[in-house]
Amino acid sequence: MKFCSTCGATVEFRVPQGDSLPRHVCGSCGDIHYQNPKIVVGALPEWEDRILLCRRAIEPRLGKWTLPAGFMENAESTAQGAARETLEEACARIEVGDIYTLIDVPHINQVHIIYRARLLDLDFRPGEESLEVALFREADIPWNEIAFRTIAMTMRHYFEDRRSGRWSFHTGIVTPDMPLP
Amino acid sequence: MKFCSTCGATVEFRVPQGDSLPRHVCGSCGDIHYQNPKIVVGALPEWEDRILLCRRAIEPRLGKWTLPAGFMENAESTAQGAARETLEEACARIEVGDIYTLIDVPHINQVHIIYRARLLDLDFRPGEESLEVALFREADIPWNEIAFRTIAMTMRHYFEDRRSGRWSFHTGIVTPDMPLP
Repeated sequence: MKFCSTCGATVEFRVPQGDSLPRHVCGSCGDIHYQNPKIVVGALPEWEDRILLCRRAIEPRLGKWTLPAGFMENAESTAQGAARETLEEACARIEVGDIYTLIDVPHINQVHIIYRARLLDLDFRPGEESLEVALFREADIPWNEIAFRTIAMTMRHYFEDRRSGRWSFHTGIVTPDMPLP
Repeated sequence: MKFCSTCGATVEFRVPQGDSLPRHVCGSCGDIHYQNPKIVVGALPEWEDRILLCRRAIEPRLGKWTLPAGFMENAESTAQGAARETLEEACARIEVGDIYTLIDVPHINQVHIIYRARLLDLDFRPGEESLEVALFREADIPWNEIAFRTIAMTMRHYFEDRRSGRWSFHTGIVTPDMPLP
């Protein structure tokens, strides 16, 4: 950030009065431009003993598999965002269930929130950001080809909970050096 | 947003190619400036049968009571943010427990996440953004003087769960017309 989005003047990176962290502060109009973490919302859509995954058509992780998920938009709820991303990436309609995982990814300033969901029908196909969309049984999950660690963590919890029959909300944190679970 | 923070040129508000929502797009360098919901993180610090509240020294809701909470910062986890806000607003040290509530507030583009927490000692005092900090028993909570609906909802859940002895994670949504619970 080099310029003030309010008045177009040059911004300085300094600690504003009464604050404790450096911010982008406009030298002309004085506006402070805060930067905060973003929420990624997504869904784990179930169909009988299978779950729906998308193969990414865009960077990062082009060609890798993921649950439908993306940046939460203004004016929507986290659950609405999960349904919207599923529609956009897999052209699939879901009934959104409970929040299933909330995983912090502080090194990239993100929090990932994934809902359990029920796929409503088999009328799905790749959206613009997907190369393929498919249903996978646990034995067929391409564990080494999963795009994001938060998604792999969510799926590991899902299959463990399904085996045990004890469903619960899971939290976690991803650090830069962690391998795919 | 009127100017591009990357190059200082004027931005247009239009739907970029391949997108479905209008964004602030730079007419000169082409950068797209996304705006996304912000996370408010906070804590519900317990001390025996009391919880810690802060009376706000700043707008919005100056003079009203709240749990320590505020905007999550880049490079921290949600739990670290809850501890930081508690230290800033109440000069209090906590042991952060489980996530307790996650409440969507879509009309102001926020998601509020509150952790249960254990106050580590009684050495607290108002931070710069608080007028007073105090411990309250349930019977003494100033329910009509609570700053935010998400905070009142979180405290209602807390006292109900404490009575029943069954603790669980709670989710919810706040709409513009809802009264304080």
